Order: sequence, then structure tokens, then C-alpha cells
Amino acid sequence: MATVDRWLLPDGIEEVLPPEAARIETARRRVLDLFQRWGYELVITPHVEFLESLLSGSGQDLDLKTFKVIDPLSGRQMGLRADITPQVARVDAHTLRREGPSRLCYAGSVLHAKPRALATSRSPIQLGAELYGDSSTSSDIEVISLMLEMLELAMVPDVHMDLGHVGIYRGLARAAGLSGEAEQRLFDAMQRKAMDEIAELTAAVEPSLAAMLQALARLCGGRETLDAARQVLAKAPAPVTEALEALIRIADQLALRYPDLPLYFDLGELRGYHYHTGVVFAVFVPGVGQSIAQGGRYDDIGADFGRARPATGFSTDLKTLVSLGKAELDSRLSGIWAPYGDDAALWQQISRLRREGERVVQALDGQNGETAATAGCDRQLILQDETWTVAPLAS
Amino acid sequence: MATVDRWLLPDGIEEVLPPEAARIETARRRVLDLFQRWGYELVITPHVEFLESLLSGSGQDLDLKTFKVIDPLSGRQMGLRADITPQVARVDAHTLRREGPSRLCYAGSVLHAKPRALATSRSPIQLGAELYGDSSTSSDIEVISLMLEMLELAMVPDVHMDLGHVGIYRGLARAAGLSGEAEQRLFDAMQRKAMDEIAELTAAVEPSLAAMLQALARLCGGRETLDAARQVLAKAPAPVTEALEALIRIADQLALRYPDLPLYFDLGELRGYHYHTGVVFAVFVPGVGQSIAQGGRYDDIGADFGRARPATGFSTDLKTLVSLGKAELDSRLSGIWAPYGDDAALWQQISRLRREGERVVQALDGQNGETAATAGCDRQLILQDETWTVAPLAS
Repeated sequence: MATVDRWLLPDGIEEVLPPEAARIETARRRVLDLFQRWGYELVITPHVEFLESLLSGSGQDLDLKTFKVIDPLSGRQMGLRADITPQVARVDAHTLRREGPSRLCYAGSVLHAKPRALATSRSPIQLGAELYGDSSTSSDIEVISLMLEMLELAMVPDVHMDLGHVGIYRGLARAAGLSGEAEQRLFDAMQRKAMDEIAELTAAVEPSLAAMLQALARLCGGRETLDAARQVLAKAPAPVTEALEALIRIADQLALRYPDLPLYFDLGELRGYHYHTGVVFAVFVPGVGQSIAQGGRYDDIGADFGRARPATGFSTDLKTLVSLGKAELDSRLSGIWAPYGDDAALWQQISRLRREGERVVQALDGQNGETAATAGCDRQLILQDETWTVAPLAS
Repeated sequence: MATVDRWLLPDGIEEVLPPEAARIETARRRVLDLFQRWGYELVITPHVEFLESLLSGSGQDLDLKTFKVIDPLSGRQMGLRADITPQVARVDAHTLRREGPSRLCYAGSVLHAKPRALATSRSPIQLGAELYGDSSTSSDIEVISLMLEMLELAMVPDVHMDLGHVGIYRGLARAAGLSGEAEQRLFDAMQRKAMDEIAELTAAVEPSLAAMLQALARLCGGRETLDAARQVLAKAPAPVTEALEALIRIADQLALRYPDLPLYFDLGELRGYHYHTGVVFAVFVPGVGQSIAQGGRYDDIGADFGRARPATGFSTDLKTLVSLGKAELDSRLSGIWAPYGDDAALWQQISRLRREGERVVQALDGQNGETAATAGCDRQLILQDETWTVAPLAS
């Protein structure tokens, strides 16, 4: 086994063989075409950039995930992209510099030095869409709808979505005068729903705010959670109630558009809290521990690139989408087997058939027709009355 | 300008913006579809691999071009692929392990630590096709024909092709008992057509072989070069005359298939000599110093991966193909502008139009129709008799 082991790929780094690669290519095209029909324009960002650009606006998490190399031309540190979102934000803020909303999308592989979770891929093909320049909930509704359409196109069954808004906890914590370490500790306790710790950490906080913070960890469940939150947070500071109302507006629109989609709310659990500034969302399917598509609003990112722009978007992994989706991605493999030969008329006939869109596999010197079926052919070219003619494969 | 400079990309590392990115996507699909019609199956290889796999069978040149990183999971050295060809050879020899000929193709970006030449990209999108398992000239003719069809599809004007065969020089050098340093020095002199040096380096060689080696450097030009070579090399050892006859067979077939293509032969200039084992070819266009597509036979590569397989193929850079090609790649940007609104009937109409393949851009909260044209729309959705109807854009 020595020879075999020597060529094994690194853990979590995959290659895709036929016919799976063709299925992925088909799904890629369909999703990019969907994005295009919604007005999203494709950008192609590089696989390496200067590290400070790549990590801009993101947390330590992305730093740990990013492979680093030294650029021999500049002597500066570069990173292999582990996430395309910050690159697209840079393109919007720094390169395109458009006025008004900008809809961008992308598809490309990323690399993770460390896997996101045990036994997950370190080389996903990231696919996503971003909407810049608009801070209204209509943008959030649009990108979430587009994400759901993408999942429907891929025919991923039994999806359900988690929705939250980081502005609710953040607004309460600020009003309570918590910041830095205190805010972080309370945030951690909140994620674990550690009620005792939350009570302890809010002991010195103004009583009505403390009550609201404590209630937040319990505000999770279906649509009724939002009504309960309205009551609990009725007297909260304006940024908090505005965040809640935005979340309700988004949830109500989504419920109208996708009445069959189970929506789940958790006002205390906040994925991407350090990165996001508004609504956050993630889609799950039964039996898969990690979210299969996720996103949110991240209005602050543009500032790092010289221009603050509102931003909201989502991303997914194309390979996950293809493996979970039930969409028919195999194109029926048909083809015409052509014999080996130097005959000019044979070459012209093969060329003509290919121009017409046919798949034609020509035998190599010494190959006979026995391999026609292996090559996915169902017909053959034969010489009939001095004309090269398509005929059924002799069976 | 401090902010601007901070986000500049590394030299030779490009991003592609709209609408250029869409043009590249269109060209990518067309070329992959062409490969598919010729029976070539897509593989997707990873962007990083263990270094020994990536550099297997290749020369020092590829090593210098390859960025290296340490894999935190295995502690082993990995490389960022600078060439996809060795990866596909590994897939054929080690992963697929098919009997009989295997036709594979790929498209993906590669990274070069050092640019191939001054001011060339370090992040090309490599596109190529490889044929494994057949050592006859019919394979070489097929891959060269496919490369030419790809250039025709991209409508690259004024192409001409250089053809050679490393077996001619190699056979003569071996018969002359040259090896190691002596063969390398003569090879270098040959590339520079340094006739004095060649005479000096072959002074101790058997006179008839010395004469042939000296003649080789002068054997360059059009089709007549091959006839001259037949005379000069008439008494050469069998491997040399076999190589020459293979080259002539390939050249003659290509001349029949592509009578308008200028073919140029240089029996002394040998691109990729250390890597290739048979025919070598490269396509050039006026005004571009580097070849725009190139390839050759490299039968030895499989052995490194536990299984020796004949191999021949070519590669190109998709971005170069798009920039030099005259093919129409812009899809006419049309679209329907939809007003902002929560109306369920409006949403249903938008969804229906998109499902039918229309591009529909919906206004965000507060946006009016003035931006419709900027968003590439030529029609709009208006409410007419309580029905959402497509109407021309009011001008």
C-alpha cells in the first residue's frame, strides 16, 4: 500500500471525479443563472490576497482558518482565501465604487487551514450573493428569498431556517452599560442559555434591563416568540425595539412568500455576532449538524475599505448543495462512436455532428467498436453507400 | 491615496469585475461543452495537495513557481497548484485506474509564485484536456485538433503553431553517448542555435551523428523542413527516424484538417524537453511573446503515481483566450424592473417571470424606477386593471 498512501490527499481536501464533477458543474451553472435572473452580477475574486485585505472586518475565527504565504515579489504576507465575502465587500467598496445598490454574486473554491467542524471539508466551493448599498429590510428579504430559491432549485428537502437579529442583544447590552469583557462574558453565557450565570452577570444592571436580558435567553421557538418578545421588550431602548420590528417585518414577509417553511427564532443565540450588525439567518436540514446555507447583515465591513456601505448576503457550499439536493443533475449520456481513420470525409462528418451539438467519440488507432458503450455512446458512424451515416450501435 | 494603496492586489493577481466576469463564465461554459462533445470528462482537482504529488514528474521550473504551506493537520508540506496537468495525471493513474483510453478535462485557477514572464498574470484560469492510455499519433492528432477547435470557438485570429518532437534530439544524443551534463549543455546550445558551441560539444562524437546533431539546429521552417530532415536523418538510429515519422504523420493530418493553419517546425528548439517525451506544440499569435496554448506528449508521468500510462494533452489560460478572442460573449442584457412592494400578487408575478427565464430586478424600499435602466432593464412591471403586467420602460 506504500504507493497508494503516498498519493493520498490531505484530510478534508477532495478531488471530484466523473460523473460527479459534471453534476457539480451543472448545479453551478443553474445557481449562477438563478442569481443572474435576480439581477446579481458575477465577480471573480483571486485565490490569494494580502492578508490584511482578506481578514478585514472579520474576527479571529477567519484568521485561524486562513493559510498564509509570503509573496516573493512584495515580501508581504498573503492569505489563501477562506471566505469570499470580504473579497466581494472590498470589490464593492474599493473597486466598483458605485452609487446606489449593487448586487454581486460569486462561485469559487476556498481553503480552510482548519476544518469548520470535525470531518468537514477544508475545500468547499463557496457560492453566494451579496447586496450592498441598501439598509432597508427589503434587502434582507431579497437575499433570504434568493437563498431559499437556490435551495428549492437544488431540491434540498426538509429545510428549516433559524432567524435572529444581533441588534436586540447588542442594544440591551449597550443600554446596560456593558462593554468589552463584560459584554463578551454575558454573550457567552447567553449562547449556552446558562440562566444562573446570566442572572449573576446582570446583577448590577438597572433592574428592567436586567430582566429583559434574562428574558432574552428564553425567547426561542416559533412565530409566537416574536409576540412574546414584543411584550417583554416593550419598554426597551429604541434601537432594541427597532431591531425587533425589523426582524418581525422580515419574518412576516418570508412567511407570506414561503408559507411551508418552518421558521425558528432564538433572540439569544447569535451566530456571527462579531461580524454581523443586523438580521442573521441559517438553514438546516435533519441529520446535518452544521448549517447548509447562512448569512446576515454586516453593514460595517465597507468602512475598512475606505467606504462604509450597508451589506447583506448569504453563502453556501456547492458540494453540500449537490450532495443533499434531489435535483436531477445527470445529463443523459448519449453519443456517437466513430471509427479510427484518416478519411477526410469521416473527419468532416464528425466535425459537422459536433457542431450540431452531438457528442462524438472517435476511436484511436487500433481501438475497435467494443469500447463504444464504455465511452457512453449509443450510436455509431458507419460507411453506407460511400456516406458516413449515423446508425444504432450493433448489440 | 493611503487607503487606496492599502487594498491594491499583489502584482499579477487579478480580480475580474462585471461585465468581464460574465464574459469569462460564458467562454468557460462554451469550451467545457466543446470538450464534452469530444468525449472529454470533467474532473475537479483541489487547489492544494501534498507537494510531492504536485511536483511529481515535473522539473525545477514548476517547483520555483509553486507556493508552499505547511498543513496544520498533518505537518506535511503542501503546495498551491501552479499547474493542473500533474493533478489530472495522478487522477488517471492513481484514482480512476481505468483500462483503455481515458479522456479528461479541467478548468480552474492556478497560482504562480513567480510570473511566467515579465508582467504576465500569476493567477491564470487554466483550461485543458488530456488523453491517457494511448501511445499512437491518433491521440496527439486528436488533442491538437481539439486545441485548435477551442481557439476557433474563441475566435482567436491569426494563430500559427510550432510543432516539434523531443524524441529526435533525445535519440541522437543517446546514440552519441551523451548524457547528464553533456546532454544538457548541448541542449542549451541547441536552443540558442549557437552553431560554434554545438560543433565544439559534438567534436568527440561519432562523425555521422555529430553531423546530424549539428544539422538539427538548422532544421527549422515550414513543411519543407520535414523533407530536409528525412534526408539528413536517413541513417539515424531507429528511435530518431520513428520520432520523425510520427511528427510527419501528425503534421500531415493537421494540414489536411486545417489547411489554412500556418505550421512551423523547429527540430532543435524543444519546449518542455525535461517533461515531454514525444510531440510538443505551441500556438502563437502576432504581438504576444508567450504561447497562448501549448502541450505535448508526456508518457512517463504516470509511473510516479504507481502506474505508467501514455499521456498527451494541452492547456491554455481562459483569461488570455477571452482577451484575444473575437467571439461575441456579451449576452444582451435585458430585464424587467419591478416596483418595491409587499403585495403578494406582485411577488407571484415576479416569481413566475423568473421561472420563465426572465431577469427581474425588484426595487428596494425607497428606490424608484429611475434606476431601472442602470440595472439593465428595458421593461417594467406595472399594475394595470389590477393585474401586474409587463410594459415598456417609460422613456
